[in-house]
Amino acid sequence: MRVVEKVNDVRATVKEWKAKGLKVGFVPTMGYLHEGHESLIRKASEENDRVVVSIFVNPIQFGPKEDLSTYPRDLDRDSKVCEGAGADIIFHPENEEMYFEDFSTFVDMNGLTAGLCGKSRPTHFRGVCTVVTKLFNIVAPDRAYFGEKDAQQLAVIKRMVRDLNIDIEIIGCPIVREKDGLAKSSRNTYLSIEERNAATILNKALTLAKEKIQSGERNSKVIIKLIEEILNSEKLARVDYIEVVDSLSMEGVERIEKSVLVAIALFIGKTRLIDNFTYEL
Amino acid sequence: MRVVEKVNDVRATVKEWKAKGLKVGFVPTMGYLHEGHESLIRKASEENDRVVVSIFVNPIQFGPKEDLSTYPRDLDRDSKVCEGAGADIIFHPENEEMYFEDFSTFVDMNGLTAGLCGKSRPTHFRGVCTVVTKLFNIVAPDRAYFGEKDAQQLAVIKRMVRDLNIDIEIIGCPIVREKDGLAKSSRNTYLSIEERNAATILNKALTLAKEKIQSGERNSKVIIKLIEEILNSEKLARVDYIEVVDSLSMEGVERIEKSVLVAIALFIGKTRLIDNFTYEL
Repeated sequence: MRVVEKVNDVRATVKEWKAKGLKVGFVPTMGYLHEGHESLIRKASEENDRVVVSIFVNPIQFGPKEDLSTYPRDLDRDSKVCEGAGADIIFHPENEEMYFEDFSTFVDMNGLTAGLCGKSRPTHFRGVCTVVTKLFNIVAPDRAYFGEKDAQQLAVIKRMVRDLNIDIEIIGCPIVREKDGLAKSSRNTYLSIEERNAATILNKALTLAKEKIQSGERNSKVIIKLIEEILNSEKLARVDYIEVVDSLSMEGVERIEKSVLVAIALFIGKTRLIDNFTYEL
Repeated sequence: MRVVEKVNDVRATVKEWKAKGLKVGFVPTMGYLHEGHESLIRKASEENDRVVVSIFVNPIQFGPKEDLSTYPRDLDRDSKVCEGAGADIIFHPENEEMYFEDFSTFVDMNGLTAGLCGKSRPTHFRGVCTVVTKLFNIVAPDRAYFGEKDAQQLAVIKRMVRDLNIDIEIIGCPIVREKDGLAKSSRNTYLSIEERNAATILNKALTLAKEKIQSGERNSKVIIKLIEEILNSEKLARVDYIEVVDSLSMEGVERIEKSVLVAIALFIGKTRLIDNFTYEL
C-alpha cells in the first residue's frame, strides 16, 4: 500500500489499473478511521480489484464555528487500518493540492439539503458535494462507498451523481456500532467518560422509536415527541434536530406511509453526534 | 455519423472507442451551427480519432425573459454540417433526458462570473457550468472545444475544469467572422436586413479600439469611451456592456498592463450580440 499526496500521482496509478481492465473501488474519508470506515474499505476490497481511500479533512464543509482545527488526525494509525482492510492507495493531499488560492467553483443542491444537517450547517453540503465531485474526478473509480450513518449525505451524493451524470456506482453501507449501541464516529473521541456514557441515549431513543413504529404508530409527531422526551431525560444532551422524513426526498412527513428516515442530531457537551434508522414500510 | 438521443447510448459508444485506445474530441453546442461551430468540429476532428458534437438548447442557461422559446433549431441542416466537418456522433437529447423533474444539483462559480455577461444574465453561467459538467460526464472526452467569441464562458469553463479536477483538455478556438467582420452567431439569424447592417458596428468599434491600444493607449477608460461613442453613433444599437478586464480573472483593469480582454455586449433591436478581442501585452 502506498500513501500519495498528488492528484497526478493517484490519477496516473488508477489509469494504469483501468488500462489492465481492473475495477476500482473508492472510500472517501476525513481520516481518524474507525470500524465504520473499515467496513467500507473491506466491502470495497471484496467488490473491486483495487481500492483507493482518501483521507482529507475538507475545510469547506466545516462552518466558521465548527471543529475543523480540532478534528482528530492520525495518519500512521489510519495507514494500518487501510492496509489491514485491503486498500491499495491512500490519497492524502494537502489543502493546497485541493484548493488553489483563487478556487471559485462549487457544486450545490436545492431541496434535499434544506433540512436536517443542511439546516444546522448551511454550507456543509455545498462543501461535501464540491469535494466529492473533485475526488470522483481525481480517482475516477467504478464504485464509491459511503456509510449510512450520514444518511442525508448518502442521499445527497446519490442525487448529485444522478443529476450530474457521474458514471460511478454509489454504495451505502450499514452503520457500525459500539457494543452499547453508540454509532462509531471519529467525533466520539471528543467525549469525556461521562459524556461517552450519556451518548448512548441516542441509540436508545432510536431503538424505542423504531419499536413504536413497528407496533403500528404512524404519526410522525408522536414519534418525534417520544424521542424528544427520551433525549431530554439526559442532562448532558441538547437536541439539534429530531426529524422523520421521506427517505428519498428528505422532506418531512406527517404520516409514516412509505420508507422513512428517522434522524437525530444531538449535542453531548460541545460534541455534535448524529444517528438514524430507515424504516421500510 | 449517428444521431443519438440517450445518455447511455453515447456513453456506451465512447467506452467502446476508448477501450480501443482512440482519443475522443467533444464540441458542445446549442445547434443551428455556423462556420464558427464548424471550425471547432474540424479542429476536433484533426486532433482526435473520434468526435462527438452535442446539440442541446439548454433551458437552465436562459433567463426568464430571454430567447429560449425562439432559439433557432434545424437538426437536418446541423447534421449535414457535423458530418461534413468530421463528427462521428451527434448527441441530441430531449430536455427530459437531461433534467429529471426533481433535478436539484448545480455547478456555480464566484468571481469570474460576476461581471460581463454574468452581470447581465445572473443565472447564465450556473446553467452553463451545470450542463457542461453533465455533458463532460456523459461524453467523457479527452479534449473539448469552445469558441473564443464566448470569451468569458471559455475562461469560466477552464476555471471549472481546474477547480473540479475534470480530466479534460479545454481548447479555445478563434472567432470566425462574416466578410464584413460580424462574428458568426446563431443569433445573427434574428436580425432584419437593416439590423444586420447595423450589427457591423460591433466589429468596427473593436477594431478601432485595438488600433488605439496598439498605438500606445493604456487607459481603459479612454478605450471604453471610444467604443461607447462609436456604438452610440448607430441608432439601432443599445449598449449592454463595454468592459476591459484581465483576461484570466475577468476583473476590470484601469491600466492595460498585461493581457486584457476587451468585450462588448450590444442589443441590436431585441437581439443581444457579443464580440471581443484579447490583447496580449
